Amino acid sequence: LTGILYSLLLLEHNDLIMQHSILALNPRVKTHANLHSTASKKNEKKHWKRNPERSCDSCVNLENNFDDIKHTTLSERGALREALRCLKCADAPCQKSCPTNLDIKSFITSISSKNYYGAAKAILSSNPLGLTCGILCPTSDLCVGGCNLYASEEGPMNIGGLQQFATEVFSKMGIPQIRNPELPPAHKMLESYDNITIFERQKYIGGLSTAEIPQFRLPYEVVQFEIDLMKDLGVKVVLEKGLGQNGMTLTSLKEKGFQVVFVGIVLPQANRDKIFEGLTIEQGFYTSKDFLPLVAKASMCNCRSQLPKLHGNVIVLGAGDTAFDCVTSALRCGARRVFVVFRKGFNNIRAVPEEMEVAKEEKCEFLPFLSPREIVKKDGRVEQIVHLKADFIISAFGSMLNDPEVKKALEPVKLNAWGTPELNSETMQTSEPWVFAGGDIAGLANTTVESVNDGKQASWHIHKYIQSLHGNTVSTTPKLPLFHCAIDTVDISMEMCGIKFPNPFGLASAPPTTSTPMIRRAFEQGWGFALTKTFGLDKDLVTNVSPRIMRGTTSGHIFGPGQGSFLNIELISEKTAAYWCKSVAELKANFPQNIIIASIMCGYNQADWTELAKMAEESKADALELNLSCPHGMGERGMGLACGQDPELVRNICRWVRKATTIPFFANVTNIVDIARAAYGGGADGVTATNTVSGLMALKADATPWPGIGRGARTTYGGVSGNAIRPIALCAAIAKALPGFPILATGGIDSAESGLQFLHAGASVLQVCSAVQNQDFTVIEDYSLGLKALLYLKSIEELHNWDGQSPPTIRHQKGKPVPCVEELVGKVSISMASHFKKQNSLWRDQVVLDVIARALKHIGVYQKLDNTEQVKALVDPEMCINYGKCFMTCNDSGYQAIKFDPETHLPVIMDSCTGCTLCLSVCPIIDCIKMVTRTTPYVPKRGLPVNPVC
Amino acid sequence: LTGILYSLLLLEHNDLIMQHSILALNPRVKTHANLHSTASKKNEKKHWKRNPERSCDSCVNLENNFDDIKHTTLSERGALREALRCLKCADAPCQKSCPTNLDIKSFITSISSKNYYGAAKAILSSNPLGLTCGILCPTSDLCVGGCNLYASEEGPMNIGGLQQFATEVFSKMGIPQIRNPELPPAHKMLESYDNITIFERQKYIGGLSTAEIPQFRLPYEVVQFEIDLMKDLGVKVVLEKGLGQNGMTLTSLKEKGFQVVFVGIVLPQANRDKIFEGLTIEQGFYTSKDFLPLVAKASMCNCRSQLPKLHGNVIVLGAGDTAFDCVTSALRCGARRVFVVFRKGFNNIRAVPEEMEVAKEEKCEFLPFLSPREIVKKDGRVEQIVHLKADFIISAFGSMLNDPEVKKALEPVKLNAWGTPELNSETMQTSEPWVFAGGDIAGLANTTVESVNDGKQASWHIHKYIQSLHGNTVSTTPKLPLFHCAIDTVDISMEMCGIKFPNPFGLASAPPTTSTPMIRRAFEQGWGFALTKTFGLDKDLVTNVSPRIMRGTTSGHIFGPGQGSFLNIELISEKTAAYWCKSVAELKANFPQNIIIASIMCGYNQADWTELAKMAEESKADALELNLSCPHGMGERGMGLACGQDPELVRNICRWVRKATTIPFFANVTNIVDIARAAYGGGADGVTATNTVSGLMALKADATPWPGIGRGARTTYGGVSGNAIRPIALCAAIAKALPGFPILATGGIDSAESGLQFLHAGASVLQVCSAVQNQDFTVIEDYSLGLKALLYLKSIEELHNWDGQSPPTIRHQKGKPVPCVEELVGKVSISMASHFKKQNSLWRDQVVLDVIARALKHIGVYQKLDNTEQVKALVDPEMCINYGKCFMTCNDSGYQAIKFDPETHLPVIMDSCTGCTLCLSVCPIIDCIKMVTRTTPYVPKRGLPVNPVC
Repeated sequence: LTGILYSLLLLEHNDLIMQHSILALNPRVKTHANLHSTASKKNEKKHWKRNPERSCDSCVNLENNFDDIKHTTLSERGALREALRCLKCADAPCQKSCPTNLDIKSFITSISSKNYYGAAKAILSSNPLGLTCGILCPTSDLCVGGCNLYASEEGPMNIGGLQQFATEVFSKMGIPQIRNPELPPAHKMLESYDNITIFERQKYIGGLSTAEIPQFRLPYEVVQFEIDLMKDLGVKVVLEKGLGQNGMTLTSLKEKGFQVVFVGIVLPQANRDKIFEGLTIEQGFYTSKDFLPLVAKASMCNCRSQLPKLHGNVIVLGAGDTAFDCVTSALRCGARRVFVVFRKGFNNIRAVPEEMEVAKEEKCEFLPFLSPREIVKKDGRVEQIVHLKADFIISAFGSMLNDPEVKKALEPVKLNAWGTPELNSETMQTSEPWVFAGGDIAGLANTTVESVNDGKQASWHIHKYIQSLHGNTVSTTPKLPLFHCAIDTVDISMEMCGIKFPNPFGLASAPPTTSTPMIRRAFEQGWGFALTKTFGLDKDLVTNVSPRIMRGTTSGHIFGPGQGSFLNIELISEKTAAYWCKSVAELKANFPQNIIIASIMCGYNQADWTELAKMAEESKADALELNLSCPHGMGERGMGLACGQDPELVRNICRWVRKATTIPFFANVTNIVDIARAAYGGGADGVTATNTVSGLMALKADATPWPGIGRGARTTYGGVSGNAIRPIALCAAIAKALPGFPILATGGIDSAESGLQFLHAGASVLQVCSAVQNQDFTVIEDYSLGLKALLYLKSIEELHNWDGQSPPTIRHQKGKPVPCVEELVGKVSISMASHFKKQNSLWRDQVVLDVIARALKHIGVYQKLDNTEQVKALVDPEMCINYGKCFMTCNDSGYQAIKFDPETHLPVIMDSCTGCTLCLSVCPIIDCIKMVTRTTPYVPKRGLPVNPVC
Repeated sequence: LTGILYSLLLLEHNDLIMQHSILALNPRVKTHANLHSTASKKNEKKHWKRNPERSCDSCVNLENNFDDIKHTTLSERGALREALRCLKCADAPCQKSCPTNLDIKSFITSISSKNYYGAAKAILSSNPLGLTCGILCPTSDLCVGGCNLYASEEGPMNIGGLQQFATEVFSKMGIPQIRNPELPPAHKMLESYDNITIFERQKYIGGLSTAEIPQFRLPYEVVQFEIDLMKDLGVKVVLEKGLGQNGMTLTSLKEKGFQVVFVGIVLPQANRDKIFEGLTIEQGFYTSKDFLPLVAKASMCNCRSQLPKLHGNVIVLGAGDTAFDCVTSALRCGARRVFVVFRKGFNNIRAVPEEMEVAKEEKCEFLPFLSPREIVKKDGRVEQIVHLKADFIISAFGSMLNDPEVKKALEPVKLNAWGTPELNSETMQTSEPWVFAGGDIAGLANTTVESVNDGKQASWHIHKYIQSLHGNTVSTTPKLPLFHCAIDTVDISMEMCGIKFPNPFGLASAPPTTSTPMIRRAFEQGWGFALTKTFGLDKDLVTNVSPRIMRGTTSGHIFGPGQGSFLNIELISEKTAAYWCKSVAELKANFPQNIIIASIMCGYNQADWTELAKMAEESKADALELNLSCPHGMGERGMGLACGQDPELVRNICRWVRKATTIPFFANVTNIVDIARAAYGGGADGVTATNTVSGLMALKADATPWPGIGRGARTTYGGVSGNAIRPIALCAAIAKALPGFPILATGGIDSAESGLQFLHAGASVLQVCSAVQNQDFTVIEDYSLGLKALLYLKSIEELHNWDGQSPPTIRHQKGKPVPCVEELVGKVSISMASHFKKQNSLWRDQVVLDVIARALKHIGVYQKLDNTEQVKALVDPEMCINYGKCFMTCNDSGYQAIKFDPETHLPVIMDSCTGCTLCLSVCPIIDCIKMVTRTTPYVPKRGLPVNPVC
């Protein structure tokens, strides 16, 4: 025994030595300021520098490097964090500043709630080239330029990056576009709608996006994705046929039976300065129209062997966006140094700042106020001569239309002084009513997104024109269909206690249901059901105090969106029972498909409950909720929680109400199994769980509370709501105890994702309040669609490694190579046909029923957990950002089982890891730490042996 | 009656009409994509543009405009939000990259917990010019350059802005610096330490900061603040006396009895190109050494009437930081257009990017590869001549020392080839051992912060040198005292149940106290007390499962710092009772001042409790905690919560333990008054309230839980901790029910500020776990100092309008004039003397006792709140950032009482406001909405009259 004890103590001793070395870098409170000479610090800082050195030596070699160079690209973690910052402005300026009028705050809302299809739908509905534009848009000049967050220190949103992220995730889902199922089937419509052909001059489709934008700015897969979505709707594409080629003219097309032509060609010729006349590529002279297509074409092949070969110094003339595409491309074609030479000063550069910024980072030089000809010397005082020795010159002076064949092919369309079609800028119609135009040739659009909008604008007026040919008139309010795919067709209606809910999302009995008009508006926005604000008999009428609803402080010092909770001391409705009964009757008459549940409250008194329940039933409410859980104010009057904490009282009240009414009713209880059981025993048809949780939110530094009422600044315990209480509200305990007993869940439901958690935990329908307080009624669209997407994606086998709408995390660290999503997800090869089949076969009614209570089998008592099946942590050094929180938390809150390299700042998990998971829980990088199955048995360190001899 | 009813219905009807117009901008779910032509969108976006137009027309007039131009300046809200992002890296690269080795993550931690003095102390301890450097430092080249967040999409921290914010708030507190009270008093030290004089050549002190840096970059108050802190320690200043003037030389100073001289002069002469020989200011030629001092001096007076008058085109020669100071100053002196002309290319600009960025924003033009002389024409192919017509030329080619008087005065110090002193770069000692040098003249420092570090480095070696003169040796490890002020002297020790706590902060019985070495380290870092991890008898030993601690999801999709909670299913200690009893004995022997409370747990069995309690008492624990509240796992074994939910069991267990032991003991209960009352009745000396709260944190989209144990992925209800549960844990209810009964609070204490809330709510001491899990043991320094600061500031009448350490919010909106803090706080005129007096009289022992339970008088039942004393909302249009959340939330979760102007996007609160406070609770801008007393009586809208006739 002594031997065992000795070896155990030795073990402890070895542990201490080990710990000493482990703790070397652990922080310590300072007792003195420390001292390092300026000279030594200058050296030291170089080792830790994260941003690029400003000296030229540190340049990466860009030759043949086609990696993504955008600063805006976001990982899922980055996207979630960024989306959280969006204020979701009432009348959002971002939308006003987007050429396609994209509902930006809606798609950011959806990203925020991990509803990536919801986001993609919003984007593609307004902009069919939503992914391209997310990548290419000069956002500082558009949406971002208007962002209200410019008025805050954290600055405007990264809208382009978010748009790119959501559409890219959707593209990986591999789901085809479908026609809006509410439209008449294509074959029942005019032929023009069913027979659309695109003629493309090149061998590949995509226009300027494919032919002139380098791959590191816009990969071809992106263009392909959007083309595929278009083809999904039946649009035909004919390649190598262009206007003016082989006799194709507007007139020839008309003769072939095309009723309308939309001309969307780019300006095909480069604007070339006279000074360069006769110069050739062989002599080292390119126009951007020579150079960029060569680069684009060569970079479609991974070998890049066909890239133009440059070397030495390259001059790019011009300072528009195209010029900067030439700059960055030239570096990738071998240029050692690129000079941007432009006629005006920096203040007149046409390119957007983000384009110029990249060129600056890639160390190109700028030479303003220069142009490629000798300027006549005047008698000025300061004179200088600039020599620029260059091996290549690329001129990027813009484009024009001067091909006589094309011009001829456009006849009889009238051209303006610039040689492009005369155009109605509202209808995009040329002088010939059957010819429309947009993009470069139309002269309005300076960017891809504006070209997209030209097309969108024209599409509506083409529709009008075609209908007019058939004598039909079209509504003056444009009605362009939204983007649709199979996800939209999922049925999320739900039956509970014989009541059919259009969807499982409803408004809780809370501030969002303060009055009838509010419920009316909520139904109009798509909410499935609503509870009235709780009402009582006239003798119990209340008057509120103010202030009474406060900002949650449970997520730190966050103001505005991102705060995780609220606290309120608001009472039940100030309105009379008569008002509410009248309201319920009206609402049911106007919204027969929507469900209204009357929330009622009385003291512990059979007569009162009977009177009120009967009154509510007569109003034609679909069901009743008995509020037995209001945690503040009402309890003191013998109501709310005063009745709801004693199972006996709950059982009796339920019996009284059961006796008084025939419609279903639910008791609103705090999430305690005994109380739920009493409600069940008393004949309730289900429970609403849980109400807000009693608490005090905060005290100021002078000991006064907020909310503080009146001059005395008095307060009382209020109700905490929002996602801070979600862990308490997740209703599995009731569902386990009373299988099949309906639960109307509430408490921190703020997305389809969290809603699904409640369904999995046994809830049937879902009530929302705080999330609406934090935003507005329109979140319902995000919730419904998000739930449809979660249900749909679950059915796709190829995506089994996704978590909900989240693809597997890409391993990346900025500054290290970033593998593309493709590699990770595997070649996405989801058969389009199988989706359609699924859509028709799988999506029977009430698919929501399938997911209810699915998680319960995983949840049980502690003793049923297996303490022999253990895990340990594993760090991915590729993803680690070297900040060492895993190491610190393991030291100060755990098991001293992580070493931290003082030089590389990489953590190493040791075998003494107990799998507690704290390191993963504090790591800021998703999936950088994983818990993997332990291969050796876990032996607890008991410190001293059991029943020691000493 | 019908009349009344009619008018009420009419009121409702009018409400509806009103609501219709109010709701005009309220968001709606989209049924169709909308359509706006590219041409119309181009116009529309202009109205909403927030960022500056790129065209020159939109320039603001900069003449005489001395507003702050830094992008880094932060409001309190901005600072709190930014501080939240900091990862607090283990071995933080920011600190490694700071010339003064500033402990940056510590000061950011303190800002994060609203402990602004704590932050200022950390800053000023390492860098006595901490405010100046926060403002001036080229951080992208220093601290920020190393930030690990470069590897994340959100990018590196704004460290300069945070440093500026914290020191600025401290400067407004008006508290003088004092000597570290642990040092011997000055009069007992060698005279050299008590007699330090600065000789300054100018009329005002501050050196280059005052004389050459323009006021809009560094206001003079900042320099004055730091000079005052220096003077607080007794340093004397003599103005208008400089080296080489009136016979002052190093030798003359030595003769006057100065034992050591530190030479910290700037290089006084401008480096001037020969081409400019003979040119004068009158002819339009300035060197930076001519120009900047004129600007600096003139701008000290608010009228700015003495500014050099420029006009037309100005050429600045050079591209160093000084050149850019000349650029921005020239614009403020009337220049219409400024050209920066420099010899090399953009890739060789010496100035830091942030300096150049400002010049770019202010529309100056850059001309690279030019220098002010005719360059000989060669036979190159491309030739150009640049004419630059300029009205003024400012040359900024750097400085040098060539004044013969100064050189002579430096004798006998040896000078090097550059004409500056030969120097030991470690000791900053010149060839004369009694002469030290730093800053410009020493040639090591390129920036203010490096000059500061030279001085700091020299100070230690001067100390060593002086001690050596007296035959004393000095420790080889430098020991520079930390910054001190009266706040540091506040006594926060605390007595409870006869136990004296060094401070009220301790570690809860939780993962941070898993083993003895961890408690040992915690005490070394300054924690006042610790509870052992709960232990039981050997027969009840446990083995944990893994995973078992999870990231909180209660603040949305936040990974890493900023998450507000954790959930765990960890059990009590895996170590034996023998281990813990041995540990307690050892810890008490080594840390007699610190308090150890043994946390114990048994089943409901008198023999077990007696045995364990006696065992713990024998180990010399200061007190016991009976764990009667563990919410997971232990309950199933008849322990923890199984004993703690029934008052009768609690009372009996307490009686058993009372009988078995004499030391104080506390029952760990959930925050329920009845259970606390039972503990009181059973003879407990107090309660620990509250344990974690039972909950499920999250389910994945496939219905499996996390943590999921083993192949079955099973879980159980766990304990939620962290600030998400703070509203539940705030212990006022127990304190109200059992006045004077000690409470050891726990549940979301993560700062001095939140700790004070618990004290105000009646707690005596404070237990911490989650905050340590989220960071490390060193947070204790922040908590202790923060509590001292809160107690101290409360005593300063002049700061009565501060909330804790937060000054009143500055009314501001980016792009609108920003009033300075001074105007708002009023002329801070806190008598320095009064502070010293206070320090000596006020800070008796145990001042913490004064604040305990101070909030209780504000907290009571709902019926005691006055619903006639009501408030309504008031929006400050100056601060509003126009996003309209107040409007939306009032519509969809409230009372439709806010109008929102479609043109200006400004909200207007109407008289129908019910004061619910929801608008304030969702507003992202601190103090933009205030609740003000309602002047008219509040009449609830009952909807229909009480007891309607119909």
